[in-house]
Amino acid sequence: MNFKEEIKHKTEQIETIINRYLPTEEGYQKAVVQAMNYSVTAGGKRLRPMLMAESAALFTRVDEIWNAAEAGRQEDTTLGRALSLFMAALELIHNYSLVHDDLPAMDNDEYRRGRKTTHVVYGEGMAILAGDGLLNYAFEIAARAFEKAETVEEYHRIAVSMQVLSRKAGVYGMIGGQCADLAAEKMGAEVTEEMLLYIHEHKTAALIQAAMMIGATLAGASSEELDRLEKCAYDIGIAFQIQDDILDVTSSLEVLGKPVGSDEKNHKLTYVSMHGIEKSKEQVEELSRDAIEILASFPRRNEFLEQLVERLIYREK
Amino acid sequence: MNFKEEIKHKTEQIETIINRYLPTEEGYQKAVVQAMNYSVTAGGKRLRPMLMAESAALFTRVDEIWNAAEAGRQEDTTLGRALSLFMAALELIHNYSLVHDDLPAMDNDEYRRGRKTTHVVYGEGMAILAGDGLLNYAFEIAARAFEKAETVEEYHRIAVSMQVLSRKAGVYGMIGGQCADLAAEKMGAEVTEEMLLYIHEHKTAALIQAAMMIGATLAGASSEELDRLEKCAYDIGIAFQIQDDILDVTSSLEVLGKPVGSDEKNHKLTYVSMHGIEKSKEQVEELSRDAIEILASFPRRNEFLEQLVERLIYREK
Repeated sequence: MNFKEEIKHKTEQIETIINRYLPTEEGYQKAVVQAMNYSVTAGGKRLRPMLMAESAALFTRVDEIWNAAEAGRQEDTTLGRALSLFMAALELIHNYSLVHDDLPAMDNDEYRRGRKTTHVVYGEGMAILAGDGLLNYAFEIAARAFEKAETVEEYHRIAVSMQVLSRKAGVYGMIGGQCADLAAEKMGAEVTEEMLLYIHEHKTAALIQAAMMIGATLAGASSEELDRLEKCAYDIGIAFQIQDDILDVTSSLEVLGKPVGSDEKNHKLTYVSMHGIEKSKEQVEELSRDAIEILASFPRRNEFLEQLVERLIYREK
Repeated sequence: MNFKEEIKHKTEQIETIINRYLPTEEGYQKAVVQAMNYSVTAGGKRLRPMLMAESAALFTRVDEIWNAAEAGRQEDTTLGRALSLFMAALELIHNYSLVHDDLPAMDNDEYRRGRKTTHVVYGEGMAILAGDGLLNYAFEIAARAFEKAETVEEYHRIAVSMQVLSRKAGVYGMIGGQCADLAAEKMGAEVTEEMLLYIHEHKTAALIQAAMMIGATLAGASSEELDRLEKCAYDIGIAFQIQDDILDVTSSLEVLGKPVGSDEKNHKLTYVSMHGIEKSKEQVEELSRDAIEILASFPRRNEFLEQLVERLIYREK
């Protein structure tokens, strides 16, 4: 398989894993479960679960999760099962943040991925509840990872994964970034570069860090290796975001699928408006080089992950 | 100390424990942390953390958590520390549900416990984020309980507590109850008794079950003992709710502090409107007798807990 076929195949397998853990639409809780599943099954790149699985592969073989998905069964090993549960959990957290972000009191978006947003279809109250349900359910399925644990080592890896997941999604992670972003919207040109980097680090990079660190933790990485991977995921997240800002200036409507120049029109301060296109491109280049270098320093070479990171950073839409 | 003094003293110590774990109001995430803490520090009976500690006391000595709170320090034992972390976590979950319940798209309440609600003070977007922050932070501090764990037995008890917490708060617990409650509001007189009991069990009893089951789990209860305690907490939750409905009919404005007869005015179907006052009182009596009987069946007698449950059920406001 070439890279394109491989990414398509893996995305399908991740869909299988996520669907396996979604709650069933029945009983008096049916309406909220429908609203939750509506949001999760809308598609998306499934980037975070993919980064999690591929980061695990830097430290151990992970064929088990792909084979199990292919065969439509659950994993046999404790850590294989844990990996698939955390992959689904992280994707649910990403999705809850989109449901709440789209609410009228937040970004007030009516469409996402070509479909009406959750609150437009199910009403605002149910969308708030569905977001809460997704966030809570993420921890519910993550906690199920302990079910098969037997040794202190297995318990420990899952416990650390739980700590990383909750911290990177919370007020010292993604929610902190969303809070700063709300404040920045009112500040306009007064936003400092420090604050801008804080927002990117927390709103964008934090869940990428969670993905890569949890994959590595479950696969047995040392805490020193985890620190390096956290830095690598930071580089990827920031580069991804700067590339986003570059595309907003340089791309065309046809390629991007949404209006270009929207940041400037919205008077949104970005890395590009602060440093210009050339400097921004250099910065992306440097961050990406650093990230790939860190990836290459781990026990097992993962060329697919390296390609994925490059593709992610140097994308055209 | 008599019962009244003891409950006051313990409530103060629980305040100390909760405050110990609240996030600090600093950095770019300051605004959301302020909104989170505003809601949590508004007071309340701290009933769920209290039931958790007292249920642990049915199986082991828990003096350590009270002594540590008194001395303003953290607990030394893994399970003492875990107990205080889960007490705080459950109270945060209770509080997030209030913040989101009060939102304009939900119950649209402007006052709670004599103070303006979170969205009135901080805006709707920030209140959504603060609720998310509290729910997430609850799991973040619960996950910290693993930090001191060393043996498989310690890990196991904390992992089971995490499973109970997430399940009872989620779509198969409190959120499921809220979903059914939203549906029931539109159904009026078509609500069945089965549905009404589902709502009470999930919206009210589920977090009481979480409280009592987590306390017992951390203290080493067997799974058979846990099942009995789950039933006991169900009885308490349902009795508490029926008593609420009785008070709405029989109490006076002065005693209750809010208008009586509001259920009838809102055409809200309740246990009382279905079965009448006398049958409802008998039901409360029976549930309460069952609950106390179960409590008396455990290894250690806890008279304070028995009194607390009676007080809770036969309250006048």
